[in-house]
Amino acid sequence: MNIVLLSGGSGKRLWPLSNDIRSKQFIKIFEKEDGTYESMVQRMYRQIKKSDPEATVTIATSRNQISAIHNQLGEDVHISLEPCRRDTFPAIALATAYLADVRGIDPEEPVVVCPVDPYVEDDYFEALKALCEQAKKGEANLVLMGIEPTYPSEKYGYIIPENNSNTADVRTFREKPSADAAQEYIAQGALWNGGVFAYKLKYVLEKAHERMDFTDYEDLFSKYDSLAKISFDYAVVEKEPRIQVMRFGGQWKDLGTWNTLTEAMEESCVGEGIMNETCENVHIINELGLPVLAMGLQDVVISASPDGILVSDKEQSSYIKPFVDKIDNQIMFAEKSWGSFRVLDVETESLTIKVTLNEGHSMNYHSHKNRDEVWIVISGRGKTVVDGMEQQVEAGDVITMQVGCRHMILAETELKLVEVQLGKEISVHDKQKFSLE
Amino acid sequence: MNIVLLSGGSGKRLWPLSNDIRSKQFIKIFEKEDGTYESMVQRMYRQIKKSDPEATVTIATSRNQISAIHNQLGEDVHISLEPCRRDTFPAIALATAYLADVRGIDPEEPVVVCPVDPYVEDDYFEALKALCEQAKKGEANLVLMGIEPTYPSEKYGYIIPENNSNTADVRTFREKPSADAAQEYIAQGALWNGGVFAYKLKYVLEKAHERMDFTDYEDLFSKYDSLAKISFDYAVVEKEPRIQVMRFGGQWKDLGTWNTLTEAMEESCVGEGIMNETCENVHIINELGLPVLAMGLQDVVISASPDGILVSDKEQSSYIKPFVDKIDNQIMFAEKSWGSFRVLDVETESLTIKVTLNEGHSMNYHSHKNRDEVWIVISGRGKTVVDGMEQQVEAGDVITMQVGCRHMILAETELKLVEVQLGKEISVHDKQKFSLE
Repeated sequence: MNIVLLSGGSGKRLWPLSNDIRSKQFIKIFEKEDGTYESMVQRMYRQIKKSDPEATVTIATSRNQISAIHNQLGEDVHISLEPCRRDTFPAIALATAYLADVRGIDPEEPVVVCPVDPYVEDDYFEALKALCEQAKKGEANLVLMGIEPTYPSEKYGYIIPENNSNTADVRTFREKPSADAAQEYIAQGALWNGGVFAYKLKYVLEKAHERMDFTDYEDLFSKYDSLAKISFDYAVVEKEPRIQVMRFGGQWKDLGTWNTLTEAMEESCVGEGIMNETCENVHIINELGLPVLAMGLQDVVISASPDGILVSDKEQSSYIKPFVDKIDNQIMFAEKSWGSFRVLDVETESLTIKVTLNEGHSMNYHSHKNRDEVWIVISGRGKTVVDGMEQQVEAGDVITMQVGCRHMILAETELKLVEVQLGKEISVHDKQKFSLE
Repeated sequence: MNIVLLSGGSGKRLWPLSNDIRSKQFIKIFEKEDGTYESMVQRMYRQIKKSDPEATVTIATSRNQISAIHNQLGEDVHISLEPCRRDTFPAIALATAYLADVRGIDPEEPVVVCPVDPYVEDDYFEALKALCEQAKKGEANLVLMGIEPTYPSEKYGYIIPENNSNTADVRTFREKPSADAAQEYIAQGALWNGGVFAYKLKYVLEKAHERMDFTDYEDLFSKYDSLAKISFDYAVVEKEPRIQVMRFGGQWKDLGTWNTLTEAMEESCVGEGIMNETCENVHIINELGLPVLAMGLQDVVISASPDGILVSDKEQSSYIKPFVDKIDNQIMFAEKSWGSFRVLDVETESLTIKVTLNEGHSMNYHSHKNRDEVWIVISGRGKTVVDGMEQQVEAGDVITMQVGCRHMILAETELKLVEVQLGKEISVHDKQKFSLE
């Protein structure tokens, strides 16, 4: 099975755990059998590999997610890098061209595209396989997954099939209807659109060539920023007469808000938290190294991260976006390809951060125009290069770097350091990179 | 007027803003007219001085509050230092001896003792003056303040007067009755015991000499740790036949729990916080440098400090103590005579803190047996002494101190530094002090 996972944008609906550079799909929130936690993308990847060990998984995403993907899934996963965000039609076209031209998949092979963030069980992946098989038959150009609706939601698209059989031709679509209209569609056998598309690889390549002027994957990649933003639904699905839908009646939850996300959590508390006996339907997700004590609350989610603290009635949490837009978000924590960093202290002329470098990883060799820096290694060992001079370092060593000084550090074991930045104009943009001879 | 303010223990009921070394009376929570905030002790001191500029204020307290008292009230306030905690009779006896022997107050002069934490208006201080004048008359040995009860509370002591006149002899006391009994006492004209005692100085000295073997203040101070723990109510009030009570009908709030404390707050939010329009009767007290977002909450207090985060229904917040007892409280923030510190990061073999030294202040000259330290000055300037060597320092300077190295820093301006402690056994008790020649 060839699966393309669409790993979407940042999203503020799960603030303070998601932010401009950290997406909800990477939050480790689901408890596994061994007591450790996994993220949405880890859960889905594990489920895919369990359902079909031979599956090739390609994640369509942007540059700022690559570090987190490799940290969480390892190096085996394929990535179709989107140079910038251009909605789902360009993203699916690029991923399809990647499968054809880079990975050499036969144009007659089926591909299934699905979002990275539904909360599902193993039967969902069996359904994906069935979609692929159906696409391969060629009875239709596109095969969609129709989710059996559980209530007349106003937030989903509806697929109206010709009949009630398991696999049916699609008569028409209805986008986000009113609850009354939704109720009527459901009575007629309508299904929620699960955002899953299965097709033969050559079909989407043809559709892409019809709308975009490119020769192959590399050419499309180089022109990506000039492509129009347009959704796959609008550019392809709505214009295609030959579409089938397959019904799916298993568990399917859209984890886009705290309300739905906490419903999917096994444990009511992730991180340090205490609830008294009068709390009901309360969830705590605490990434700060501080205890959270909740007393006498009902239907509340508490989420704390270095970016901020949310305390919300669960229903109300779906209205979070405009409030988060107002918050001036200095990024206080980030996961990177080489490890992670956390802001410890912010002053007008200094910034103190803690950096964790994964074993074998290093920073770029770089310098700053407007700040001095000091590193204090607090654990692990490694090697620094400062203005061309190599030095072995370990816990307790202090390295000072003046303005303009080129520097890097390589972690020979996991290595942690406290970095103090000093200057009148401290900015993440003040960084010049150099290659090490 | 001679006022003794009893500044009691730490108290966990206002966690995470109060802890073992930081008491509720020092939390800056009350907005002043100029938009800045003052603490309970600052508010009371300001009110006393407004009501009676000639008043001498003596605060009876323990060593760990002295820094905070001088930081908040300046150097003019008198302190009766309790070498250890020995309940209110020894505390009042010691403070009274301090007034007589150290401050030379005439034994015929009246003294009024009151708690530091009621939330009151100017009329309360007029009432204190009236108590003093009444004590001076000598019609009784003790004059108490009787608060007009507003409801049949089970948590206060009740004073039953002989009659309903403004100043009356006391018939008897009832400690924390049931609500039904309280209702009956109130119907009979009973008053809440406001914890205020006015007396002629010589009276308490006599009572003290009856129970304790001492010559003068210094002798009592030196023997303080051998005194029995006993309350003034039990040792003196309950045994005294000649007591009067004066009625007080003005505002009087006991700010012992989040429920009552938030009622007294002018602003619903102290620190960084946003509430959406569906929040009702919500208070945010946020000392973390992170935004708090509250949505859809009713009757909730959110309090965040470096020690932890409380989210509680206001009623429920009065049951906080056993939960806080369970929390392993590493002190993450403290105000000291020389400034303050905040823990930034805790690892198994390192601890990173931020230290702010007030202008003109310095640390003790000291060393550690089991840890190295590094200082990075991030703002201000001063002078370090390291193993006897003096050095001028300013922002950007790095000072490294090996195990056993003697060190101190003096702030010539306000000075901030990041201190990284490194070692296998980091403990606050690992400190040897030395005098500077």
